[in-house]
Amino acid sequence: MSGDITRIHTGVPQHLDERFAHRAAMMKPSEIRSLFAVASRPDIVSLAGGMPNLTAFPMEMMAGVVEKLLLENGQEALQYGSGQGHPKLRTQICDVMALEGIHAHPDDVIVTTGSQQALDLISRIFIDPGDVVLVEAPSYVGALGTFHQYEAQVVHVAMDNDGLIPQALREAITSTRAAGRKIKFLYLIPNYQNPAGVLLTAERRTEILEICRSEAIFVIEDNPYGLLGFERPSPNAMRAEDSENVIYLGTFSKTIAPGLRVGWALVPQSLKEKMVIASESSILCPSNFTQLAISSYLSDQPWRDQIASFAQLYKVRRDAMLESLEKYFPKGATWTKPEGGFYVWVTLPPEIDTKALMPKAIVGKVAYVPGTAFYADGFGSWSMRLSYCYPSPEKIREGVKALGGVLATEMQLRGLN
Amino acid sequence: MSGDITRIHTGVPQHLDERFAHRAAMMKPSEIRSLFAVASRPDIVSLAGGMPNLTAFPMEMMAGVVEKLLLENGQEALQYGSGQGHPKLRTQICDVMALEGIHAHPDDVIVTTGSQQALDLISRIFIDPGDVVLVEAPSYVGALGTFHQYEAQVVHVAMDNDGLIPQALREAITSTRAAGRKIKFLYLIPNYQNPAGVLLTAERRTEILEICRSEAIFVIEDNPYGLLGFERPSPNAMRAEDSENVIYLGTFSKTIAPGLRVGWALVPQSLKEKMVIASESSILCPSNFTQLAISSYLSDQPWRDQIASFAQLYKVRRDAMLESLEKYFPKGATWTKPEGGFYVWVTLPPEIDTKALMPKAIVGKVAYVPGTAFYADGFGSWSMRLSYCYPSPEKIREGVKALGGVLATEMQLRGLN
Repeated sequence: MSGDITRIHTGVPQHLDERFAHRAAMMKPSEIRSLFAVASRPDIVSLAGGMPNLTAFPMEMMAGVVEKLLLENGQEALQYGSGQGHPKLRTQICDVMALEGIHAHPDDVIVTTGSQQALDLISRIFIDPGDVVLVEAPSYVGALGTFHQYEAQVVHVAMDNDGLIPQALREAITSTRAAGRKIKFLYLIPNYQNPAGVLLTAERRTEILEICRSEAIFVIEDNPYGLLGFERPSPNAMRAEDSENVIYLGTFSKTIAPGLRVGWALVPQSLKEKMVIASESSILCPSNFTQLAISSYLSDQPWRDQIASFAQLYKVRRDAMLESLEKYFPKGATWTKPEGGFYVWVTLPPEIDTKALMPKAIVGKVAYVPGTAFYADGFGSWSMRLSYCYPSPEKIREGVKALGGVLATEMQLRGLN
Repeated sequence: MSGDITRIHTGVPQHLDERFAHRAAMMKPSEIRSLFAVASRPDIVSLAGGMPNLTAFPMEMMAGVVEKLLLENGQEALQYGSGQGHPKLRTQICDVMALEGIHAHPDDVIVTTGSQQALDLISRIFIDPGDVVLVEAPSYVGALGTFHQYEAQVVHVAMDNDGLIPQALREAITSTRAAGRKIKFLYLIPNYQNPAGVLLTAERRTEILEICRSEAIFVIEDNPYGLLGFERPSPNAMRAEDSENVIYLGTFSKTIAPGLRVGWALVPQSLKEKMVIASESSILCPSNFTQLAISSYLSDQPWRDQIASFAQLYKVRRDAMLESLEKYFPKGATWTKPEGGFYVWVTLPPEIDTKALMPKAIVGKVAYVPGTAFYADGFGSWSMRLSYCYPSPEKIREGVKALGGVLATEMQLRGLN
């Protein structure tokens, strides 16, 4: 009996699964969940997580900001607020986006609980089960999870060191439509991509925008790392070139702090009302307290200098990682050279299964994220994401050295060097 | 051409609607949205909103709490946290629930962005388009909006002054199933219901739990006001009697402050994993900062006394409203007598359309919420919700007096008195 089988496999009461919505079948733990539990043990050097490094955060200043906020404006800060987000913060968000060439009106900004909530709202507005979403190959694991939960079919489009390849996009659109599927949007991270660490060139941005406009496919531009470039400013945001067909996602998680959970979406006017209504249905309103804390921080503090000092901190770690990779990783491994952001993407010989290798890495006291986590289709087994954002440069060197040893042993075992 | 018609009516580009998901058709502004804009004008006495009154909130103390939190534990408070919520706060939440007879384990608590997010997650897990959700008649407008967005069919079940009527529930289950529809859950607010202000008796709680258990229908117990009883403690929570079939929703929005956006769900073990995964897909994790602010407040401050002083503040306002209703409302109007919470539900002769009456009330400098907002089926046109939570007792008397005048005139016009 199927009911008995259900009970044996999942431990839930008989027939419980039948009481869920169809989409609930998609709500299963990801493969990297248990990994993160292990990777957070203090004896492991974790090159797995994407936590921003807050050691350079001006904590005393922020303590003063929030104290003052409650003393001077506590009745507003602790009350319900607007579903769309606080008007003052939305105006300041436009100033932040102007640094990347975007001219926006605060009316078109929706404040969200981190960018993740914006991804959820967009999925809710656009995705019917079976609809196609185009994403980079590889793509952000959190976005894949959300698209999956809305029962989208995810189609990966190839990238190289200059980001998403326009010709690959054209081919993906053609073949998807030839198969009779509906494409809802292209999701991409143009700056220092998660997980690949690459930057989409300015020329390709224009070309991709043209393709998507002419094919009536919305572009979701997710930009958490754009202000964290190491050598030079990032190219202008794609939204700077196209205000009608681009839905832009921003966040303060990497430029201020993630624990406040404040991000935003800048949307074409035609989408604004649906985004606000969807957000109200989801959370009623974002926190006035954390929004006004960020607003005060932006008003009173040298936030541009602060972002520059964060970027410097990450650059030192990026350098430590790239140097250690050169020094300790075996021949046959290649990796990206990020000019900003948090991540390096490593490609190994196809015989190496990075998920199967994880237990050996843990024994070697180092953790990473296996490449398959960033693909919806099982691809990526011989790649891995390494993060340099959180550990100290010393720990990064120690971790890369340990991982290089694990890899060298594995490759030797398989006669690969 | 339908494309042109779309453009004329909604201002969105041609064919845009076709690019949305099916559920996006449900994302329309509610009828009370524009009302709230008007009701917030300073010259209007608003008996419409449900904002907690924070005048008795210990603001200086809270300013000290958050300052200390950042100085002593800022690296954790401003970092990403657990998708399920901070373990320390989840333990404290169990202490709060114990006041209403609930014995719970922190492992079964999921922290959410207010109760609204819990409603969203539950809808996501349970509702396929066309599924039936049973709710009280009338019911909370924010819950109706979320169920609607998930394309549920909402069936209202009659209440009286003792809350939901068990026999009406039995009949609703029978007739819904006879029509071949699937019932996913019963949603109710047992304590000082929003909008009706009534309390579900202890006997009925038990009876309703028995009905739902035997019919395999989950009970969603939404309890924002349970600790805000005026005369005596509320009966035990329904969850105290049944840990397997009740999903309990709590929030700090009314007992501490809504601007922190911290609520929770206590769920049967079999649902825990899906709730966490759904929440991670929705917002990644709740704010460590606001969670730890509440945790510190609960640890260091006399929060039970504080809740008692909030209840006292609301009792004074409830008294002002009931006295004014007696004094100023015309014969033919009846209303509930809440023993806690924020709301009074007024029933008028069926000839009075409270939505159509709103402009006259606004001219009379008073606002309320028309009854139809609390029904999914167009019912409620001769009722209204009055809130006494936010205005001062003087303003409440002024508003009720003005509204009584508007009603008397209207009833006279229609030959009703």
